[in-house]
Amino acid sequence: MGLRIAVVGSGAIGGYYGARLGYGGSDVHFLMRGDLTQVREKGLYVRGRGENFRVAKVNCYNSTKEIGPCDLILIAVKAISNADLVDLIPPLLHERTMLLTLQNGLGNEEFLAAHFGAERVLGGLCFICLSRISRTEIECYDYGHIVIGEYGRKPGERIHAIASQFSACGIKCGIAEDLALERWRKLVWNIPFNGLSILAGGLDTAAILADEALHRVTLGLMNEVIDAANKCGHALESAAALEQIKRTGNMSAYKPATLLDWRAGKPLEVEAIWGEPLRRAAAAGANTPKLEMVYALLKALDAKRAQPEKETSR
Amino acid sequence: MGLRIAVVGSGAIGGYYGARLGYGGSDVHFLMRGDLTQVREKGLYVRGRGENFRVAKVNCYNSTKEIGPCDLILIAVKAISNADLVDLIPPLLHERTMLLTLQNGLGNEEFLAAHFGAERVLGGLCFICLSRISRTEIECYDYGHIVIGEYGRKPGERIHAIASQFSACGIKCGIAEDLALERWRKLVWNIPFNGLSILAGGLDTAAILADEALHRVTLGLMNEVIDAANKCGHALESAAALEQIKRTGNMSAYKPATLLDWRAGKPLEVEAIWGEPLRRAAAAGANTPKLEMVYALLKALDAKRAQPEKETSR
Repeated sequence: MGLRIAVVGSGAIGGYYGARLGYGGSDVHFLMRGDLTQVREKGLYVRGRGENFRVAKVNCYNSTKEIGPCDLILIAVKAISNADLVDLIPPLLHERTMLLTLQNGLGNEEFLAAHFGAERVLGGLCFICLSRISRTEIECYDYGHIVIGEYGRKPGERIHAIASQFSACGIKCGIAEDLALERWRKLVWNIPFNGLSILAGGLDTAAILADEALHRVTLGLMNEVIDAANKCGHALESAAALEQIKRTGNMSAYKPATLLDWRAGKPLEVEAIWGEPLRRAAAAGANTPKLEMVYALLKALDAKRAQPEKETSR
Repeated sequence: MGLRIAVVGSGAIGGYYGARLGYGGSDVHFLMRGDLTQVREKGLYVRGRGENFRVAKVNCYNSTKEIGPCDLILIAVKAISNADLVDLIPPLLHERTMLLTLQNGLGNEEFLAAHFGAERVLGGLCFICLSRISRTEIECYDYGHIVIGEYGRKPGERIHAIASQFSACGIKCGIAEDLALERWRKLVWNIPFNGLSILAGGLDTAAILADEALHRVTLGLMNEVIDAANKCGHALESAAALEQIKRTGNMSAYKPATLLDWRAGKPLEVEAIWGEPLRRAAAAGANTPKLEMVYALLKALDAKRAQPEKETSR
């Protein structure tokens, strides 16, 4: 059905959307490494809130050469592995192949545009809570949706075609008129909650909002991000902060994916979620003292874990 | 010799100054709890940089009633235990007993003044790096000095008498013309380095300054503290930030006492070092976004350790 699709980065996000598309009848091909043998043998299971299905036959490969040219590539590797895409993507391209990055934060569309041409690039924002609980199982904690848009252009026919195919496969899919604005809007949530949950020692959203001082810091960070977005030319309304706090307060207590990743020993996407927004804010003359501190602390924690200190004995 | 002295809080700081005074011939009496038997038996050893002595006979007691009235009380309990002082201090008082708090941060003089009368209260700032390495041993990592002053008054005769006795016992002792100003000056260092060393996962001063982003955050915090001090009426010069960064860069890599305490599982003096300065800054209309965040994060970490979360399984 429809577009021939490749999934590069088959973690929770890539695995979920690929499985949903495949289960819905799309022609999907996964690049896999460590999970390849088991997924070939057992398929992919998706379970949890609003989900319970199995894709018995998963097309998976350990190189993109075996997959060959596709119409659409879902990119769901961690942003810190973007450099790998330079070699992984070319075998998947034909003249009109579209690259849809489902990655978090800022800078991913720019990376793809620089290497493969801006005209191919699309972006998606995933509002969903998933976890890869084993090589062949994905757990869905909260039913969500995806919003897709064009990089630096208004959405047109091809975005509508993708959205139709997603919807037909059971993926609730919206279309962003202004992808960059929506990226900033998502950061209004991710920058405080993903950062503070780690820095405060593993707090969920409810614990952060229940703590008066952290609640205030959350709001302060949100306002910094909104101000930075506006100074960068994205008309993000100031009410977004209180709206997102209210919405989060109405959700059940939630541990951000970044916290779960951090606890699982995985590196943080420090630059995409905090570093790049901070640099753009600074370049636009925005004052973001709290963002500056969150970035510096997470970067140090991440670097320290990558290279544990040599304790000086004294 | 001179003043009859009681030491309340015989950790590293109380133990060190008490031992130095006793070794120099002062009439010193320690309140002790868990360490009492061993210190009575073995005495107190002070070792390390520029120090190597033993006080064989230490006057120690497990109640202040046994000590009875003294001329000077050195107060070196953690600020979080201040409430205990309400019962501990009265048996030590005669009409002119002086209370010298060697505690960190803001609010300790005020606490003592509220309970025992402002006219008794003095404050001391300890610039020294010590660790209680066993019940009977104190290690000195860096030779330092102490600065003492009157609470809310200019220093007079009694401060000079104390300084003389300290000096005679080998304690390098300066006199603060303006104790409150010096407390804020010390916070210019403690607020960033004590806080960031913990929040960044255990970094020493050299590692903090070597990290470009953390270096900038350190300077930002220092400038916030200086601005707050000035708005609170203390004429702290703006050059203090760069001076302290330069001085710290010239020291050998140093893990702040707060970090060592934190690693040893002890609670943080969150309110004295970060909370009270933040509240005074806010009341005076100072803008301290980074201090607000350091405070909120440390408070959350400290509270979380005191009461570990009940993990929700899902």
